[in-house]
Amino acid sequence: MSTDRKRVVILGGGFAGVYTAQYLERQLGRSGDFEVALVSRENYFVFQPMLPEVISGTIGLTDTVSPLRRLLPRTEIHVRDVESIDLERKAVMTAPGFRPHSHAIAFDHLVIALGNVTDFRGLRGVPEHALPFKNLADALVLRSRVIRALEEAAIETDDPELRRQLLTFVIAGGGFSGVEVAAELNDFVRRVARNYRGIDPQEIRVVLVHSQGRILPEVSEKLALFAQRILRRRGVELRLDARLEAATGEEAVLAGGERIPTRTLVSTVPSSPHPLVEMLGLPKTKNGRLIVDGHLRVEGRDDVWALGDCAQIPTPDGGVAPPTAQHAIREARTAAHNIVATVRGGSLRTFEFGGLGKMGSLGHRSAVAEIFGFNVSGFLAWWMWRTIYLMKLPGWGRRLKVATSWTLDLLLPPDLVELKLSGSIGVAQEHFEPGQEIFHQGDLGDRMYIILSGGAEVLQNENGRERRLAEIGPGEYFGEMALLQQTTRGATVRCTDAMNALSLPKREFGVLAAHVPELRKSLDEVIERRTRANRAGRLVADNSK
Amino acid sequence: MSTDRKRVVILGGGFAGVYTAQYLERQLGRSGDFEVALVSRENYFVFQPMLPEVISGTIGLTDTVSPLRRLLPRTEIHVRDVESIDLERKAVMTAPGFRPHSHAIAFDHLVIALGNVTDFRGLRGVPEHALPFKNLADALVLRSRVIRALEEAAIETDDPELRRQLLTFVIAGGGFSGVEVAAELNDFVRRVARNYRGIDPQEIRVVLVHSQGRILPEVSEKLALFAQRILRRRGVELRLDARLEAATGEEAVLAGGERIPTRTLVSTVPSSPHPLVEMLGLPKTKNGRLIVDGHLRVEGRDDVWALGDCAQIPTPDGGVAPPTAQHAIREARTAAHNIVATVRGGSLRTFEFGGLGKMGSLGHRSAVAEIFGFNVSGFLAWWMWRTIYLMKLPGWGRRLKVATSWTLDLLLPPDLVELKLSGSIGVAQEHFEPGQEIFHQGDLGDRMYIILSGGAEVLQNENGRERRLAEIGPGEYFGEMALLQQTTRGATVRCTDAMNALSLPKREFGVLAAHVPELRKSLDEVIERRTRANRAGRLVADNSK
Repeated sequence: MSTDRKRVVILGGGFAGVYTAQYLERQLGRSGDFEVALVSRENYFVFQPMLPEVISGTIGLTDTVSPLRRLLPRTEIHVRDVESIDLERKAVMTAPGFRPHSHAIAFDHLVIALGNVTDFRGLRGVPEHALPFKNLADALVLRSRVIRALEEAAIETDDPELRRQLLTFVIAGGGFSGVEVAAELNDFVRRVARNYRGIDPQEIRVVLVHSQGRILPEVSEKLALFAQRILRRRGVELRLDARLEAATGEEAVLAGGERIPTRTLVSTVPSSPHPLVEMLGLPKTKNGRLIVDGHLRVEGRDDVWALGDCAQIPTPDGGVAPPTAQHAIREARTAAHNIVATVRGGSLRTFEFGGLGKMGSLGHRSAVAEIFGFNVSGFLAWWMWRTIYLMKLPGWGRRLKVATSWTLDLLLPPDLVELKLSGSIGVAQEHFEPGQEIFHQGDLGDRMYIILSGGAEVLQNENGRERRLAEIGPGEYFGEMALLQQTTRGATVRCTDAMNALSLPKREFGVLAAHVPELRKSLDEVIERRTRANRAGRLVADNSK
Repeated sequence: MSTDRKRVVILGGGFAGVYTAQYLERQLGRSGDFEVALVSRENYFVFQPMLPEVISGTIGLTDTVSPLRRLLPRTEIHVRDVESIDLERKAVMTAPGFRPHSHAIAFDHLVIALGNVTDFRGLRGVPEHALPFKNLADALVLRSRVIRALEEAAIETDDPELRRQLLTFVIAGGGFSGVEVAAELNDFVRRVARNYRGIDPQEIRVVLVHSQGRILPEVSEKLALFAQRILRRRGVELRLDARLEAATGEEAVLAGGERIPTRTLVSTVPSSPHPLVEMLGLPKTKNGRLIVDGHLRVEGRDDVWALGDCAQIPTPDGGVAPPTAQHAIREARTAAHNIVATVRGGSLRTFEFGGLGKMGSLGHRSAVAEIFGFNVSGFLAWWMWRTIYLMKLPGWGRRLKVATSWTLDLLLPPDLVELKLSGSIGVAQEHFEPGQEIFHQGDLGDRMYIILSGGAEVLQNENGRERRLAEIGPGEYFGEMALLQQTTRGATVRCTDAMNALSLPKREFGVLAAHVPELRKSLDEVIERRTRANRAGRLVADNSK
């Protein structure tokens, strides 16, 4: 093999990245004049259209994903986060693995296919409390959260407010992704609720929030209205012309002020390009997508290519390619051809693809589809959905598995095994809205809080009368008393100004207090002061000095 | 229904607990003279014999577990940890769920079936670094760890020591459980390694450590030697008459001094009864099991019953029932009968069961079995193993799923999707053995450490010469410089005395340093002192005062 083999490095393991690698592998032949490397955060490729079925367990938990190494046997695969891209030195730095040093991957051609990320910034409390729905881990986390909520609701018989929160599921975003999640989640909870003796199916609410007058902006109004009818008939509440504005651990707050009590909030919007793309000094559109020419080359570079959801790709009719899988696959073919043409010498191709149609599953043997200009809905659309996506699933092994799962699903009740995915939550950031209780007098002390912004009041109930002990604000901490003295909460803390706080679980707090002498000392002082003040009839909250 | 319905509360969701509830449900009829509640940590029952197959993905990830609510439709199920048992007030307290208050569950009859736990106490570093193998989460964590190790090995081409650690898998304990884990894990890594271009199958080591002269003490010597031959032929190294003594994140240390470099250490031994049983003021044997009579009633109580692995159960021949599933199921039947007899009035039965036989899978179409006194090995034993356990699996739905998975497994290569199960590790405890480097000069700073016991030395390499800057010991912290100043490690820290340390990841450390003023202040002082000392040519490590 020649030593001046060109290295093509692809960033991203979604449709755009994986198909580019696959097309490049096909053209590699025996020549060995270039080699392909792909960097992905996960070691598998997610077949997005089927991801919502993981929620209900209609298909096996890993059926919808394919190991990258099986799909791309001739590609060098790095399962790592990308830390930075150095366009000058032509190298990509990846985050450390088991050993704390980063790797540099050199490239001759760079393909940026990093997709987009769900971006909750700017929405109060949403980054802290909403669940995204992008990859397999998100789907598994959501599934577990739903089952956990049902388990708790089944035994929380004496707290109607908590029951309402546990049995309400809110999905923000009424595009294909949000609608499919709402449909699957609704089918799932209503089917499995029968197994919970303590839950009345009437108590369950599934709410889909969408900012426009109708859901599914991707398809015609007729199909969207059909989908709305189907969803409503199955018990999904629609909140149209409504927007998620804020969230806490206990409720979703909509613009306009409606508050929906919930412990399970999923948001599929808004999305923005990958943060790495933001950092790159390459020409971008206003909404942050990389600007490429019809050959998918980034403006001003002859060695950098971009495609998929992180790029703005011109179509021959003067428009822009939409962010769908079918487009990403065609973009990948064009990019692969053009890279090979650049390496070997040859003419470049221009991206030309108009789209075949659009489909969205509504679960439970119904779907909507727009194919070659025809509108199809109901069972026929659902059958087309299953058939077409099954054929598109990469590898016959997966196809066989999914087909088997679908068949078994006709015979068996849905699985309701809860996978406990993350043991410890560690230090967390939490958001509280005015009026919300952080904890209640008499509760067990399970964590302490440090206020980052906003404020709260400390209240004590004595013989039925509520007394206001103090107001606390940024930089102050509270809740450590019950942790240090192993007692229940001596007072209620209620949010007065929208508050962001850092919370430390008991275990983390315990080891730090025991082993960081400075912290221990200052905590001891706080306790002494508070105990003294409390004895004197009031609580001095000013402990941050 | 009468208000003086008796409440039977069962603790534990293993074979003993679940089958007791099932037998009780059967005798419940329409009478409603008692009700059954079961408290379990997980919302599913694990069919232990098939758990090792989850490692290789031979069966679907959740095929081997059954939702408790499906198995026990008439039982009140609490998916919670048990916090305490109050025998005087006849109530069980469960740990808090979403809201921080605990639940009290009243009982008239209490069935203790909490099983045992893998107990690593007393083994240096083993609690921190070894993986247990008891429940579904353990199996999934192990599977992910193995795939992660392969992914990293495939790209760690320039660090032979790290590669050795990544590609060596150590299992401690040569009983049925350990042998089955070793066999499945060995089959799995050797099969999937072919998909990793950067890994030579010759590099992979799977080591089974057992404290006696032969593995499988449960069966005859002949079968054990057969199993040893099979395992060796497949590439498993056996370390007999060897015992795991200590562990670090990078190696397993055996009694006698052998050190096996590894990043994946599984231990199925030793086990001890559940900690709650330890705390109860009930008569126990020396090894902590509850003493019961032939009716499975705890000595000295007429309302407390115990069975399964946490109890010592006398057999008619004067022996003790072994801790196997088949015994637990028969114990459950006896206990259920006797509880009903006590409630309704009737004669008690005595536990009598001699055992039917023993079976252990060696993976890859081989097994060993001792049935009705006959020794069976190889393919026939494997076929019996599959047939018998498939029939014993609760529910025809699961049986269908497992049978389907087994069939597909004949056709398809093993799945190698890595599920990233836990996002953050939070504050962790780590163990280091003398000579081990905690971090190396030039590494990226990813965490800081607080020494709990033992000691280390700080070394700096300057122009190829190694200089010893300081010795540090209990109460001191190190590694914070690189974190605060966003640089790489300025020195190497190497363990001198077996050391236990608390480690704080960068993120946790960052938020604490930013928001706990006391910590920040003391860190600033440390940095100033160290920088000054460093400039003067030496580093003062005494920062804990």
